[in-house]
Amino acid sequence: MNGPDKDGIMSPSRTGREIYELIQELYPICRSITGNGFRQSMEILQRHLPLAIQEVPSGTKVFDWTVPKEWNIRDAYVKNAEGQRLIDFRKSNLHVVGHSVPIRQTMSLEELRPHLFTLPQHADWIPYKTSYYEENGDLDSGSLTYGELYLPGNEQEEILISCHACHPSLCNDNLSGVGIATMLAKQISLTAHRYSYRFLFIPGTIGAITWLARNEDKIPNIRHGLVLAGLGDSSKITYKRSRLGDADIDRAASHVLQNSGLAHQIVDFDPYGYDERQYCSPGFNLAMGCLSRAPSGTYPEYHTSADDLDFIKPDRLGESLCIVSEALHLLESNRTYMNMNPKCEPQLGKRGLYSSIGEAERALLWVLNLSDGSHDLLDIAEKAGMRFTSVQEAAARLVHSQLLRPLDIP
Amino acid sequence: MNGPDKDGIMSPSRTGREIYELIQELYPICRSITGNGFRQSMEILQRHLPLAIQEVPSGTKVFDWTVPKEWNIRDAYVKNAEGQRLIDFRKSNLHVVGHSVPIRQTMSLEELRPHLFTLPQHADWIPYKTSYYEENGDLDSGSLTYGELYLPGNEQEEILISCHACHPSLCNDNLSGVGIATMLAKQISLTAHRYSYRFLFIPGTIGAITWLARNEDKIPNIRHGLVLAGLGDSSKITYKRSRLGDADIDRAASHVLQNSGLAHQIVDFDPYGYDERQYCSPGFNLAMGCLSRAPSGTYPEYHTSADDLDFIKPDRLGESLCIVSEALHLLESNRTYMNMNPKCEPQLGKRGLYSSIGEAERALLWVLNLSDGSHDLLDIAEKAGMRFTSVQEAAARLVHSQLLRPLDIP
Amino acid sequence: MNGPDKDGIMSPSRTGREIYELIQELYPICRSITGNGFRQSMEILQRHLPLAIQEVPSGTKVFDWTVPKEWNIRDAYVKNAEGQRLIDFRKSNLHVVGHSVPIRQTMSLEELRPHLFTLPQHADWIPYKTSYYEENGDLDSGSLTYGELYLPGNEQEEILISCHACHPSLCNDNLSGVGIATMLAKQISLTAHRYSYRFLFIPGTIGAITWLARNEDKIPNIRHGLVLAGLGDSSKITYKRSRLGDADIDRAASHVLQNSGLAHQIVDFDPYGYDERQYCSPGFNLAMGCLSRAPSGTYPEYHTSADDLDFIKPDRLGESLCIVSEALHLLESNRTYMNMNPKCEPQLGKRGLYSSIGEAERALLWVLNLSDGSHDLLDIAEKAGMRFTSVQEAAARLVHSQLLRPLDIP
Repeated sequence: MNGPDKDGIMSPSRTGREIYELIQELYPICRSITGNGFRQSMEILQRHLPLAIQEVPSGTKVFDWTVPKEWNIRDAYVKNAEGQRLIDFRKSNLHVVGHSVPIRQTMSLEELRPHLFTLPQHADWIPYKTSYYEENGDLDSGSLTYGELYLPGNEQEEILISCHACHPSLCNDNLSGVGIATMLAKQISLTAHRYSYRFLFIPGTIGAITWLARNEDKIPNIRHGLVLAGLGDSSKITYKRSRLGDADIDRAASHVLQNSGLAHQIVDFDPYGYDERQYCSPGFNLAMGCLSRAPSGTYPEYHTSADDLDFIKPDRLGESLCIVSEALHLLESNRTYMNMNPKCEPQLGKRGLYSSIGEAERALLWVLNLSDGSHDLLDIAEKAGMRFTSVQEAAARLVHSQLLRPLDIP
Repeated sequence: MNGPDKDGIMSPSRTGREIYELIQELYPICRSITGNGFRQSMEILQRHLPLAIQEVPSGTKVFDWTVPKEWNIRDAYVKNAEGQRLIDFRKSNLHVVGHSVPIRQTMSLEELRPHLFTLPQHADWIPYKTSYYEENGDLDSGSLTYGELYLPGNEQEEILISCHACHPSLCNDNLSGVGIATMLAKQISLTAHRYSYRFLFIPGTIGAITWLARNEDKIPNIRHGLVLAGLGDSSKITYKRSRLGDADIDRAASHVLQNSGLAHQIVDFDPYGYDERQYCSPGFNLAMGCLSRAPSGTYPEYHTSADDLDFIKPDRLGESLCIVSEALHLLESNRTYMNMNPKCEPQLGKRGLYSSIGEAERALLWVLNLSDGSHDLLDIAEKAGMRFTSVQEAAARLVHSQLLRPLDIP
Repeated sequence: MNGPDKDGIMSPSRTGREIYELIQELYPICRSITGNGFRQSMEILQRHLPLAIQEVPSGTKVFDWTVPKEWNIRDAYVKNAEGQRLIDFRKSNLHVVGHSVPIRQTMSLEELRPHLFTLPQHADWIPYKTSYYEENGDLDSGSLTYGELYLPGNEQEEILISCHACHPSLCNDNLSGVGIATMLAKQISLTAHRYSYRFLFIPGTIGAITWLARNEDKIPNIRHGLVLAGLGDSSKITYKRSRLGDADIDRAASHVLQNSGLAHQIVDFDPYGYDERQYCSPGFNLAMGCLSRAPSGTYPEYHTSADDLDFIKPDRLGESLCIVSEALHLLESNRTYMNMNPKCEPQLGKRGLYSSIGEAERALLWVLNLSDGSHDLLDIAEKAGMRFTSVQEAAARLVHSQLLRPLDIP
């Protein structure tokens, strides 16, 4: 797969722009956890990726949950006595509570008021409201839709990339994750890669639960994973560790962020947020972290109409993709090697490996010293206080000189 | 047993006043490690508690020690040539060296001087001096007395509460501990409790050694314990960890203090102080910490007549009792549970457990996520950064919804 | 062996002066990794120590390396057209690149210039340059020389002290290490000692590799060790941990430095520096740290003619020796004891061990409390926050009172 450039960060401009354009196309669609808006969005993604579309019938039991009925909407409004559309779905699909039942009724403002939601501090913003799991008997049975892409690698072990794609016209949460996952999948599909990759474009919560319930046989293969969400805003990048806390993905993401020069924070797992809640439930406890910028629920635009095309920036999207890409690149390259000459240092000079005592030679010495079977390259980079890429290059030179041999990967 | 109120701290005023009144009654008695003063004190406690009084004959071998002879005193004084009582036991029992042998002799001031102890910096304070284990052949054989109260609980495992009750007219050290232990025992005896409780009112050092030597069969039952001493002064509260360092009692006391809003310090075990020296000797290594305010020996009033009824405060006594009570309450409630729906989150909404994302729901999610058999509720509270009581309430709601089941306690 | 005085540090003046005088004698000799200069230096050391001189023939394979040819030099110069010696080996042996091949040739300045090395920032200093492992076919076969001294102790387990002795007229690097090791060996040879000691005076890198390759059978006996280098300058003392990181030598050196009152730093192992590179290679991973002052390569005088007799100070040399000596003394004395009276405290008073509660009695209590078979005296000193010597004295008193017994040493 594509690795980072020499400065460790790919120029984010071009890819950021591509992601932004995809988001612009997806933005107007009225998505929900089920229904045609979600399907239409998957069709757009299929123009970029050979996405398999899965349909799971309403009523299917998935662990403790039941796949809900389908929600489709053509129009909705509140008219005044003069027939003017005061609240109009056509102006913003956020004007309607998601998954709400059809109603046609004349009522007084007093009767209407309990059904109205506003943001006192931002009178011109529309809050995003849903009633997913309330009784909504008037909806029709149908199915829950999700998109899945599997890219086989040299190994059966998988990296799982998951993003929720169920929100209507909201950009950061989570067309940003959808766009970045799409671009990432395109990149990976074009290059050789060691791990197999699985991308999920799913409705939040119920989608992750549904996928896990239908794919328990695949779970043992998941070695690393990331939930991608909220990656287009201008806040610093947040990496939330997996429940395991020191999984390879946690160490890789931390290393990449710490060497990125970008503002960031690394936080411990907690059981709220995005779909890591499901992937990291104790019955699965997958090595999946979550990458975002501003964490969910921490910014005023969150779940409002202000999370729009102006709120996200192409450069931030591109930068976020770079971080994901680098962390995956690190996981792809991370191995444990054995020093074939463990007693004393080998004579580097006679192999042309010794120049003067600079960073490159120090990396050679670190790799030789710690390649005892119990340190992988990332361990060595951390102990040496060096970039992973320096250590990786040193290992490659030593392998070439037959001073190092990769441990077989089980 | 009684738990803390909603603010986490019981109002200390009423119980503090009761403890103080008991101390007022005990204060004038001339106690020592043996003798009638100690017995008389136990009789007063028996008016509050069904205390068993144990008598261990002088000369009994207890590990490396021997139960000493009995010390009883009726009167003592130093008269001048005019017959005036210049130093008078009737004014303060501290005027006589504890466990000293009877003497009636006329001597010069020069001869007397080596037997006089004063505090140069506090000329009006009387230092508390003893000669417990010196040769005192003129004393009579008798017995060592201690009080013991056993309150059986649902389980055979015990919590041991120990306080030394051998000091004469000294309030903080340790009528404060005696008073608090008495009130605590009253509270516990009135309520259902999971653990069995054992209260020891013993002479310091020799009493703990005697009890341990005579009760080796009971020691395997001791699961947690506390030494109570010096709890009425106005310094911040000190919790001294058990020798184990991270026993449940250590974690419980730390959690309660950290959430108490009270000034406190938590210090590591060291092998001097009160009777934790014996309980935490390497041959026993019991999970017993020590709760005090100013640690022993660190304040000028320590072991002087200034440690009097003015030095201790009812509110401080009550506050100290609250901390002990809350820590025990936490231990009583602390359990490990299993999430019965470990694969993905359960649907809280359909069980009426989901409101909005507030502290209560977060506690539900934390308990579900970490109830994998290897985290007890206190672990969860610590990881979640929440009060134990919030986590405990969440667990109760989840048990009620059959989403959680306690692990059997061996 | 000699221990520290009461203040924990031996007066460094006398021994420092002796070391300095030895360095003065060694300074003019033109040493290299092989050759007569090294031999002549060993002969001087033999006047102080019964050093065994080992000769290993050129061409001998030692792990990945080959013992090089021998380098001997009588004279070298660059004359100008007038026959004046502009660059003169007789003025400083640093004027010649170490291990360079003989040449007699007339050339222009332009032809000569690539063979000249200068220090732009210190025009009057001569840089120390070598060409050890380049092709130097014009040299003669011979042997590599090193000095070895084995001082058998009560136990077969060894402490290995290693210093490189191959540099020409350079004082801090490393006549300082040579001098200190010599004086230390003299001290140890005069006193009883538990461990066996082995001193190596070797050429850097190739000497350590050669010794390790020829002595693999002795390596299992090496329990602790130190590389001594750069110990005469006026910088703070640096202890570099072994690759193990928390070996006894690491703990001992840290304890001694922390209690020395001297400026110091303790740094983690890294795979460059002195011969710890070889001793701590993963195939050996010996418990060997490195003691120096300014670390190698971090000061301008390093590897230049400015590292001369003025750059090192007798007091600093003496001080460095004291630290080494104390750390070894600590290792000699460090043992694990068993408390023979583990249940409750023993009655110290009846054994004359109890005075008042001072540092000495606290040390008794700490030793008793932690002598459960899993804490050695250094552990106890660390936990108690006391000097090792206090804890050691307490242990001795307790052994004398039969309250403590050393655990057999395997």
